[in-house]
Amino acid sequence: MSAALPLLAIPMGIDTHQEPVVFLRADSEVCRAEGFIANTRILVCVNSRSLIATLNVVTNEVLPARHIGFSRIAWERLALSGNEKVTVRHAPVLHSMSAVRKKMYGHTLSEKEMDDIITDISQHRYSDMQIAAFLTAGVERLNTDEIIALTRAMVDSGKRLTWPKRLQLVDKHCIGGLPGNRTTPIVVAIASAAGLIMAKTSSRAITSPAGTADTMEVLTRVHLDLAEIQATVRKANACLAWGGAVNLSPADDMLIRIERALDIDGTGQMVASVLSKKIAAGSTHALIDIPVGPTAKVRSQPDAEAMSQLFEAVGRALKLKVRCLITEGSEAIGYGIGPAQEAIDVLAVLQNQPAAPADLRERALLLTSNLLNMAGRGSLGAAEVQARELLESGKAWAQFQRICEAQGGIKPIPEAACSLQLGARHSGTLLAMDNRRLARLAKLAGAPNTPAAGLRLHAKLGQALAMGQPLFTLYADSQGELDYAADYYEHNHDLFMIGESP
Amino acid sequence: MSAALPLLAIPMGIDTHQEPVVFLRADSEVCRAEGFIANTRILVCVNSRSLIATLNVVTNEVLPARHIGFSRIAWERLALSGNEKVTVRHAPVLHSMSAVRKKMYGHTLSEKEMDDIITDISQHRYSDMQIAAFLTAGVERLNTDEIIALTRAMVDSGKRLTWPKRLQLVDKHCIGGLPGNRTTPIVVAIASAAGLIMAKTSSRAITSPAGTADTMEVLTRVHLDLAEIQATVRKANACLAWGGAVNLSPADDMLIRIERALDIDGTGQMVASVLSKKIAAGSTHALIDIPVGPTAKVRSQPDAEAMSQLFEAVGRALKLKVRCLITEGSEAIGYGIGPAQEAIDVLAVLQNQPAAPADLRERALLLTSNLLNMAGRGSLGAAEVQARELLESGKAWAQFQRICEAQGGIKPIPEAACSLQLGARHSGTLLAMDNRRLARLAKLAGAPNTPAAGLRLHAKLGQALAMGQPLFTLYADSQGELDYAADYYEHNHDLFMIGESP
Repeated sequence: MSAALPLLAIPMGIDTHQEPVVFLRADSEVCRAEGFIANTRILVCVNSRSLIATLNVVTNEVLPARHIGFSRIAWERLALSGNEKVTVRHAPVLHSMSAVRKKMYGHTLSEKEMDDIITDISQHRYSDMQIAAFLTAGVERLNTDEIIALTRAMVDSGKRLTWPKRLQLVDKHCIGGLPGNRTTPIVVAIASAAGLIMAKTSSRAITSPAGTADTMEVLTRVHLDLAEIQATVRKANACLAWGGAVNLSPADDMLIRIERALDIDGTGQMVASVLSKKIAAGSTHALIDIPVGPTAKVRSQPDAEAMSQLFEAVGRALKLKVRCLITEGSEAIGYGIGPAQEAIDVLAVLQNQPAAPADLRERALLLTSNLLNMAGRGSLGAAEVQARELLESGKAWAQFQRICEAQGGIKPIPEAACSLQLGARHSGTLLAMDNRRLARLAKLAGAPNTPAAGLRLHAKLGQALAMGQPLFTLYADSQGELDYAADYYEHNHDLFMIGESP
Repeated sequence: MSAALPLLAIPMGIDTHQEPVVFLRADSEVCRAEGFIANTRILVCVNSRSLIATLNVVTNEVLPARHIGFSRIAWERLALSGNEKVTVRHAPVLHSMSAVRKKMYGHTLSEKEMDDIITDISQHRYSDMQIAAFLTAGVERLNTDEIIALTRAMVDSGKRLTWPKRLQLVDKHCIGGLPGNRTTPIVVAIASAAGLIMAKTSSRAITSPAGTADTMEVLTRVHLDLAEIQATVRKANACLAWGGAVNLSPADDMLIRIERALDIDGTGQMVASVLSKKIAAGSTHALIDIPVGPTAKVRSQPDAEAMSQLFEAVGRALKLKVRCLITEGSEAIGYGIGPAQEAIDVLAVLQNQPAAPADLRERALLLTSNLLNMAGRGSLGAAEVQARELLESGKAWAQFQRICEAQGGIKPIPEAACSLQLGARHSGTLLAMDNRRLARLAKLAGAPNTPAAGLRLHAKLGQALAMGQPLFTLYADSQGELDYAADYYEHNHDLFMIGESP
């Protein structure tokens, strides 16, 4: 096969996010000889490194002759410094896309096919459109064996944390769908105060207004490398880090980016995503919180039970002890929605503030008791007594500070530049709230990309409200985003149901 | 909602194909105020026109302050000339994506939901990734009602050709999968010589090495507007135009572009694509050719029958008379694969050349007889006699020339710059060929983008071959592409099966 003539590398100063783009002149020899047109997928080789990128074709003014331009991510992935000799050719046929097409038609993928897809994705060989096709094809049609294969392939796609033999490492995860349900920092603080080891790595939000990593980033540094995670755990028995920084299950981060753009979150991918991170982090036990409610991610008890069985089956196949807790999920937990607002609730519980949200505290205690019980630290009842004592005595708060110190110190919680308080439109009892639209409202205000953005509820279900009494406050960092969210609320008043006063 | 400060429009000289991209400086007020980052979907407004585009963020050197850059397609769609005042904001929530997500989960879409999706796609509101998600979700899971709704929405998305009342307009279509099966130009020539009216618009190839529009473009101008189509039909009773130029079912062209990138071709979308073009062109009768064979697009008789029923049901709902013919599809038709090579076969049949491929001629006669019969021009037997007489007497060839003249005149067939003849690797009988890999081989050589690229077979099934006897010739416009295809063949010798001589 003929290698094309070398071109000289030049940065374009263009940020195309995660999809690498290269730029060639329309009149370049290589475009004509190889038959390249805009959007052709091409293989770019520099020294011994290579990358598959999407081509944008440019006019003469934009690029000097005999040069090839790179977008920021393409430049970084190839570790270029400028003027390197670059050759380009058609990207090789991506055989694993045949397996993606097979899945679109509802056929079952083998372990090898799943592994090939995940390897190609983690090696950046898929375009965003191809990843979107894979996710869409599998969003609700992966069987248990395929999900096991997907999980294993995702673990194999990245690094793994190793720990001394026979050390118990426990972990917990909530599948989400319940705004404000930020139990993890509290659970980790109490459980590690009780002596359990928790090397907790968390994701950023996928479709929600905040993930645990987003919330923890408000309070401390979460961008730890593998050595820092291990050092933090040695010092404090636990850490609360962002998983994406450590190349544990890197394919997962690429899938999550596209899931976020399409606003989807399939069960199979979710189970694989959650458990691959746990296994790569070296966990031996994992507790999964599955909230069920009419507007939560899982809507019915049978769905929750099916998901629970799937988690346990995949865990079994990969030698991870998994317990699922199906919990009440009919309203948002705590008062805050969005990274900073949720951090406020977390600190209120850990500091035993009188106004701390009781629902958040009780959920955290339930989860911690189960973790202690799973790890062989006595009956559920005894575990609950121990957990409550650790929280109320302030030992959990001291332990939380120890973890944050080990990660780089506690930071002040940022305040939003703009806010808008909205009141009840008539008097009555707060009967229901739509978690999905509440989450959307917080996202329109800028969460999770803007940590201070989101909203704070001033009422919980069952509460009596006078007309005009504060119902919630919106927070945003710019007037544009605040207006954007307020405008959405104008068209969605019914996301709160207030029964009329008699 | 706050409108952002106006920016000045400037072309970037970058071709991003069909996905519009705009460029803003990272330090621009609007990026900070609106919270824009790379890949944000934004609404761009200029005077009374607007467009949804993907954002690329650029450094200061690339763009003057207070300017916004546009990719070629974004510039063209907004009909900009430079320095217009532009405002940008977050793209509105795309409600129809909720319906796409619903489909991913296997739920049925209503007529309204399907219409909303197609309207948004044809208004360019979807990113390529979102179109990929819609196509993947529906690739084999649309029911008959959804396909009817999709077809109707696609017709409504564009213009329609109108014809005098009660005029019969007949059309034919082959669902493809059989390389070289280029009957359309022959059928149109014979049928219109017999007095039928055929305003034939054809697609370019989706996953094959040539579509009828690609092949006809080798011979004449196919880029006709609506008035030219009507004028050609008035002059010559028929035309052979490219459908994409006339905004008949424009959403179809956008779907086909992404289907091509993903190399998929779902049944529901295919039926909607085919019939929406026919209905928009004003046809009253449509004959559909469904070849069945082990490596054709349809593999079994039951699949072909199911597809046939689907075509007829959708036709019935939209008042188009549809007849399907299930035909033999076990080997490539004719000798040529690729636009120019197929045009050579078409002319050989029309000119009654002694070496003309008999299989192509007989298929064309079968289809034409069915069209004449559907249109009430006598029994199948009588129609066949008439069709054969029109072909053999040269009347069909004269009629074909009349059509081409009306479209702008016949062009000489282009010759490829590079070719490579390959011989049988051992002596024996040619027992089978793999249509799919043959199609891939022609595509790797550059078909259909390079019209002269493709291949020419020198043997048909059942033929005895001596070792080294010419098996096929590859054609490409550059050595790079020729090598690329030859390399693929090196690894896929078994796409021809030659039984060993005894």
